[in-house]
Amino acid sequence: MIRTSRRLADGREILYFDREPVARNATDPRGLAPVATHSQSRWDALLGEWVVIASHRQTRTFLPPADQCPLCPSRPGRPTEVPESDYQVVVFENRFPSLATNVVRDVPPHAPGDPLAELRPGFGRCEVVCFTSEHDRVFAELGRDRARLVVDVWAERTAELSALDGVAQVYCFENHGEEIGVTLSHPHGQIYAYPFVAPRVEKVLASVRRHREATGGDLFAEIVAAERSGPRVVAGNEHWTAFVPAAARWPYEVQLFPVRKVPDLPALTDEERDAFVDVYLDVLARFARRFDTPMPYIASWNQAPVHEGREDWWLHLQLFSLLRAPGKMKYLAGSESGMGAFITDTNPEDVAEQLRAVVVA
Amino acid sequence: MIRTSRRLADGREILYFDREPVARNATDPRGLAPVATHSQSRWDALLGEWVVIASHRQTRTFLPPADQCPLCPSRPGRPTEVPESDYQVVVFENRFPSLATNVVRDVPPHAPGDPLAELRPGFGRCEVVCFTSEHDRVFAELGRDRARLVVDVWAERTAELSALDGVAQVYCFENHGEEIGVTLSHPHGQIYAYPFVAPRVEKVLASVRRHREATGGDLFAEIVAAERSGPRVVAGNEHWTAFVPAAARWPYEVQLFPVRKVPDLPALTDEERDAFVDVYLDVLARFARRFDTPMPYIASWNQAPVHEGREDWWLHLQLFSLLRAPGKMKYLAGSESGMGAFITDTNPEDVAEQLRAVVVA
Repeated sequence: MIRTSRRLADGREILYFDREPVARNATDPRGLAPVATHSQSRWDALLGEWVVIASHRQTRTFLPPADQCPLCPSRPGRPTEVPESDYQVVVFENRFPSLATNVVRDVPPHAPGDPLAELRPGFGRCEVVCFTSEHDRVFAELGRDRARLVVDVWAERTAELSALDGVAQVYCFENHGEEIGVTLSHPHGQIYAYPFVAPRVEKVLASVRRHREATGGDLFAEIVAAERSGPRVVAGNEHWTAFVPAAARWPYEVQLFPVRKVPDLPALTDEERDAFVDVYLDVLARFARRFDTPMPYIASWNQAPVHEGREDWWLHLQLFSLLRAPGKMKYLAGSESGMGAFITDTNPEDVAEQLRAVVVA
Repeated sequence: MIRTSRRLADGREILYFDREPVARNATDPRGLAPVATHSQSRWDALLGEWVVIASHRQTRTFLPPADQCPLCPSRPGRPTEVPESDYQVVVFENRFPSLATNVVRDVPPHAPGDPLAELRPGFGRCEVVCFTSEHDRVFAELGRDRARLVVDVWAERTAELSALDGVAQVYCFENHGEEIGVTLSHPHGQIYAYPFVAPRVEKVLASVRRHREATGGDLFAEIVAAERSGPRVVAGNEHWTAFVPAAARWPYEVQLFPVRKVPDLPALTDEERDAFVDVYLDVLARFARRFDTPMPYIASWNQAPVHEGREDWWLHLQLFSLLRAPGKMKYLAGSESGMGAFITDTNPEDVAEQLRAVVVA
């Protein structure tokens, strides 16, 4: 994998990732002024969680027509976010980031009037990852080679962003489908480098510790062992298992675990990366064909934090859809959004059976 | 308040609440067969949370036309869920409940194949609360007397459901607006009697305990004291304060706290209930008039659990909207749904200022 780092007109970094050497020297002809990022992280003392306040994002680009896609390669007279005329996988800093390394640092110690609401600059980094230059493709149709390149890019970005002073966790994810608010249809994902450990990860780590104290056992290992031979397996191979979790909270949810316990993507071997691609493309195809039209989904990499709990963590990908039936989305209303109590309309064993029954390839 | 308990054709309880004695003896002429509820609570061992699996709910009623509203009073030849020809406030058991007292009790000890995924019957109760017989009214327009009756009903239901063996928490809430998936437009809310303490409440109680151990202080008291005199107050009176929380996670969020520390709705005095109505109707009017069309919202009562942490809790109502701008909903995508890390596009101090600036009567 060849990596070429360049700068966009406003100073943002853009990284080209290619399988073989390609000249990547196009310059960005746009007259973009640098955007100052004024994000803050605020401490929610009641919940014990950081919330990112990014009020400058209200003006971000919203579903542009296909011929104005900012993620397509540039054409003569039509410059985009990617100056080159073609690319394989490209990563660049979001123009409207929630978190940024050059964030305005001068913030008061707490929110006005409330000493408990600690306030920090919204330090971090938000990157866009374009999976292909082809506007109308989707991840499920990338093919093995390109999907593998994306895995390598995720791993490279995780390693580099983890090394930044002040980054506590690196999160690679893909929001897919207009139904869940995706504002650009070009196949892409995102990477967030958070300055805090994400609440979900904090909670899981606490469960792992509690379980070890109570039983001496490894919670992750026990779950993976049980699910690998259980009735909710959807797909798998020597290195990976994809299963519907026993207490799935989303209408369609599959978790992909490597057989070997590793903390994050950089720790995966070549063989494990290839094996992941095989299982993931298979599961994505099942999601795409479960109903007449492809399901929207969120693909969410659960990686170990950078500085804590790394020995306890077990890397996994959580893939889930909010579609509960054709044309019917699950809404997170009072019980979920108010109380955090999830109520789901689908039965995990049935979902596994339905996904297994989808004919792929 | 007069309370009359009756039964619907399939055996579900219906409760009429009236300010003055009214005969409530209409019978339900429908040939409804009892519905067996097969819900389960499943333990998500990784997150340490219960998830309710209610797969029988897929077939529930979805946005019927107004002339077929099941929450309107019955008319000759058009029987609804409410046999009477008129009502003030009425409560009945949901025909498609996520949790029920007569749930099928015979469940295995854990999910198939996974001993860690403990399984329990979906015991509990799901009630529908109709605020008025008038189909086209909204809570913001109920008027003081009717709104006060609703508060008394919430308190009565909280007390009665809390006394049920196996109920751990009573949750009164209103989902308002089609944009958040409300399937019936008639003005109504819901009450869930959970068999577990809701994850949000567990988390807040842990914060309160941690704060007391670290500082000796009362977290709730310190927050209420700071916010009452702070820059994010939207409305208030002698007994209640409505403010935008310092680390608001929703685009429009207001929390209403009583000045006196009480665990739940039944503990409120007459005076405090009247005072709540004044502040709540004021804040709802601000939500309704902030933009050209009324905002969808979730109103979520945070009450103490039934059996634990009652001395630590401070009753409050969380009122929030996912609308971030006219026509633009906030979507919970990768960061929020995947990692639990909230990123918000609005600034809490600005939201408070905007809501204060709304002209209400």
